Amino acid sequence: MTASDPGTTPITLALARRISNAKACDIPPEAFHQARRSVLNWLGAALGGCRDTSVTHALAMATEFSGPPQSTVVGHATRMDSLNAALINGTSGNILDFDDTHAHIVLHPSASITCALFALSEIRPVAGQALLQALILGIELESRLLDPRTASYRFAWSPTTSVASLGAAAACASALGLDELKTAWALGLAATQAGGLRETGGSMSKAFNAGHAARSGLAAALLAARGFTGATTAIEGPKGFIAAFGEARDPASMVEHWSDPWQVLMNTYKPFPCGIVTHAVIDGCLQLHAEGIAAAGICSVQLVVHPMAMRLTGREAPSNPLEAKLSIFHVAAAALLRGRVGVKEFHPECIADPAILQLRGRIAARVEEGFATDEAEVVLVLDDGRHVVRHVDHAVGSLLRPIGDAALEAKFMDLADGVLTRPSAAALAERVWTMDRLDDASEVIRASAG
Amino acid sequence: MTASDPGTTPITLALARRISNAKACDIPPEAFHQARRSVLNWLGAALGGCRDTSVTHALAMATEFSGPPQSTVVGHATRMDSLNAALINGTSGNILDFDDTHAHIVLHPSASITCALFALSEIRPVAGQALLQALILGIELESRLLDPRTASYRFAWSPTTSVASLGAAAACASALGLDELKTAWALGLAATQAGGLRETGGSMSKAFNAGHAARSGLAAALLAARGFTGATTAIEGPKGFIAAFGEARDPASMVEHWSDPWQVLMNTYKPFPCGIVTHAVIDGCLQLHAEGIAAAGICSVQLVVHPMAMRLTGREAPSNPLEAKLSIFHVAAAALLRGRVGVKEFHPECIADPAILQLRGRIAARVEEGFATDEAEVVLVLDDGRHVVRHVDHAVGSLLRPIGDAALEAKFMDLADGVLTRPSAAALAERVWTMDRLDDASEVIRASAG
Repeated sequence: MTASDPGTTPITLALARRISNAKACDIPPEAFHQARRSVLNWLGAALGGCRDTSVTHALAMATEFSGPPQSTVVGHATRMDSLNAALINGTSGNILDFDDTHAHIVLHPSASITCALFALSEIRPVAGQALLQALILGIELESRLLDPRTASYRFAWSPTTSVASLGAAAACASALGLDELKTAWALGLAATQAGGLRETGGSMSKAFNAGHAARSGLAAALLAARGFTGATTAIEGPKGFIAAFGEARDPASMVEHWSDPWQVLMNTYKPFPCGIVTHAVIDGCLQLHAEGIAAAGICSVQLVVHPMAMRLTGREAPSNPLEAKLSIFHVAAAALLRGRVGVKEFHPECIADPAILQLRGRIAARVEEGFATDEAEVVLVLDDGRHVVRHVDHAVGSLLRPIGDAALEAKFMDLADGVLTRPSAAALAERVWTMDRLDDASEVIRASAG
Repeated sequence: MTASDPGTTPITLALARRISNAKACDIPPEAFHQARRSVLNWLGAALGGCRDTSVTHALAMATEFSGPPQSTVVGHATRMDSLNAALINGTSGNILDFDDTHAHIVLHPSASITCALFALSEIRPVAGQALLQALILGIELESRLLDPRTASYRFAWSPTTSVASLGAAAACASALGLDELKTAWALGLAATQAGGLRETGGSMSKAFNAGHAARSGLAAALLAARGFTGATTAIEGPKGFIAAFGEARDPASMVEHWSDPWQVLMNTYKPFPCGIVTHAVIDGCLQLHAEGIAAAGICSVQLVVHPMAMRLTGREAPSNPLEAKLSIFHVAAAALLRGRVGVKEFHPECIADPAILQLRGRIAARVEEGFATDEAEVVLVLDDGRHVVRHVDHAVGSLLRPIGDAALEAKFMDLADGVLTRPSAAALAERVWTMDRLDDASEVIRASAG
C-alpha cells in the first residue's frame, strides 16, 4: 500500500473511517425516509427498464458467463451470480432515465449503489436498516466527491458514472462491516475502475455504465474483504482519482462537510423518464397543454433554458429513444402535443410520429445564463397572433416542488405494470416502506423477480 | 448511436474499419514473429505471477461468482468462465512487472490483450494465426492511442491501463470477425469502461488493472456482437476518450499512420521483473558486479537517470515487493550486491536484507534531462578512493539491444519453473513458436494450466 505523502491529509482513509464508524443512531429518521424513497424509485425504474432491448442483450451476454444463481434479476425469473446481477440490474435501473437526482449536483445517486447492495444482500446477511444506512453512506460519498468545493471535473466524464463505483464500494464496504483500512482499499479498487464517458449518451452503453460501475464497486468491496489491497490515497493522491478526472479545489472539504447535512436529503425523484435538465421545459409545456392550448394552433415555440440544458440536451433531431431522452425539442413537442411525457413518449412510434416531427420543427431554444438548472420559460406564438409565456421557477420533482410519497408510489406502480401483478407490486412497495424492520434486506429484491 | 459531428473525421469508425478489414497477408512475417514473442513473454510472466498472494485473493473472489468452466486459469487446474479467466490471467501476467514494453511509449502492449484473446479462444473458434493477427491489431490500436502525435494524457492515468480495454476490445472484435459498425460499438463500450490510476502503484490493484481491462474489453466485444450499441465517436468525440483522459493533438494521425510501421515491431521484452525505466541502471550495476567490484568495497553510488525514471521509481525506502519493483534504489543495491535481479530479488527477505539496506543507504540519484529513457550512468566511489563510471547507452532488452528468441525462451522456462514440469514448459514454448499453424489457438492456453 502506498503511504500518504507527508503534508497531505490522508483523505481516502479519513472517508473510510467515516464510513466504517457510522452508526444508525447518528443518522436522522428523515434521511432513512429519503433512502426508502430512493429504493422505491430505483426499483420502479428497474422494473420499467428490465424489458428494454439493451437489457435483453446484456442478459444474453451475462447468462453465458454467469455463476451460481445467487441474486435476483429485477423483473426476470432467472437468477445470476451477484456480480452479473448487479451489472444487469444497474443497466435496467438506468435505461429509462427515470433515476433519482441530486438537487444541486448532476448526479443520479442510487443508480449503481442500490443494485450493488441488493446483489450483495443475497450472498451476505444485510438487515434492512443496514442496507439503507449503506445507501446513505454511498450517496454521501458520491455527492461529496462531486461537490464543486471538492474539485472540478472534465466535462467528458459522466458525473454519475465517474463516482458510481466509489459510491457502490463505500456502500458495500459498510454493509460488509469492513474496517477502516479495508474500506480504504475498497475505495482504491473502485477508484481505479472508475470511468464512464458522456459520449455514450444516445447509445445503450450509457445505461451499461451504471451496471458496470455497480459491478465494479461490489467487486472492489469483496476483494478488499479478502485482503486484496488498493491504494489508500486513491482519491487525493497526486496520481489518484481527482488528479485523473479533473482539478482539485479543496478535497479535505469532503471530510469536513461529511453528513452536514446528509446528502440523501437532497435527493429528488423524476416525474418524467428523461434527462433532468429538460424537466422545467416539460413542466411548462404540460401546464400550457392542460390549460387547453392545442398543438394544432401553435405557430412557433421558443424555449429559454439553463446553459446545461442546451449543452446536454440540445439535440434537434433525435433518431432513437435514447437520443430522444436527451432532446429538449422532442420532449417539448411531446408535452405540447400529447399532454404527457411518460415511457411511451420515447417509443420509436412517438419519435417518428409526423405530428411530433412537425411541431418539433417549430421549436427553437436559447440559453439564459442567469437561469437555475430547474428553471425554464416557454414562449408560444399562436396562429391567431397571441403570445403565451409560461415561466417555471422550479420544475415539478425538484427539491422545492418534490413529489410526495403517494405520487412516488404511483410512479412505481405505473412502472411495475406489465412486469409484476398489481398485488405483487403493491406488496413490494409496502415492503420498501417498512424495510427498516426487515432482518434480511434481500426479501425486497427477491420480490422484484418477474 | 451518436452521429459524428459534421466536420469531424469519424475516427472511431475509421479505426474500426482498419480492424475489421485487416488481412493476414497484409501483415509482414516479422510482425507475426514479434506477436509470437509477445505471447511467449506474456505466458511466462503469467506463469511466474500466478501463485502471487494477489492472484490467490482474486481467485478466491472470482471462484465464488464464476460461471461454467470455459477457460483456463494460467498455472491452476481450476477453470472459470471466460470473463473471470481474463480477469485472473491479466492479474497474473502483470503482477511481476515482467510484461513486454513498447520501445517508445510507456505501454505494456500485451498485458490485457493476450489474456482476453485466449479466454475468448476457449468459447469461440479462433485459429492460431487469427489470434496473432488480433493481437497485432490490438497492439496497433493501443500504441496509436498513446502516440504523442495523437494526444497528451494526464499523468495520473496509467497509460497501459487507460488504453487496455480498447486494445482488448479491438483484438476480440477482430477474433470474432465483427463488422465495422459492431467493432466501433465494441471500441465505444471499451472506452467507457477505460480507467486505471497510477496511484495504484505499490498495491495489488496495479496488476488488477490489467485483468479488469482485459475483462472489460472482452465483455465489450461480446456485447457488441449481440447488438448492444456503443458510441461510434467514443474516441474522438467532444465527450469521448481523448477529451476525458487528456488533450487532443491530432487524433486523425492514428488512422493516417496505422500499420506504418506495425507497432508490434516496437515491442521489447524485459530481462528484469520490475519497472522498465530502472533497467538501464540495473544493466550498469550488473556489468560492474560482473567485472568483480565487490559491494563491500563501495563507499557511495550516484545514479544518473532519465527524468521519468526518477518520477516513477524514485522511491527511496520501499516496504514491500510491489514498491520495490518501483524503486531505483532497491534494484541498484540488489544488482551491485547479488549480481542478479530476478523474481527473488523482490521477495520480502531481499527487501529487508540488512546488506541490501546498508548499500541502499549509500545510493543517491539525480536526473539528467538529456538522457534517453533507456540510458543511465552509474558512478561508484570505492573505499580505496577510486571512481568507477559505467555509462549505459541502451539498456539490455531495449529495441537496440533486444533479447533474442533463445534468451526469451530461457526467461520463459525460468518463470514456468515450479508451475509446469520442464518438459511441459518446453512443449508449451514450442507450441507458441509454431502457433500460426494451429487450427485452434486455445491449445496454447490449455497447456498453461498447472
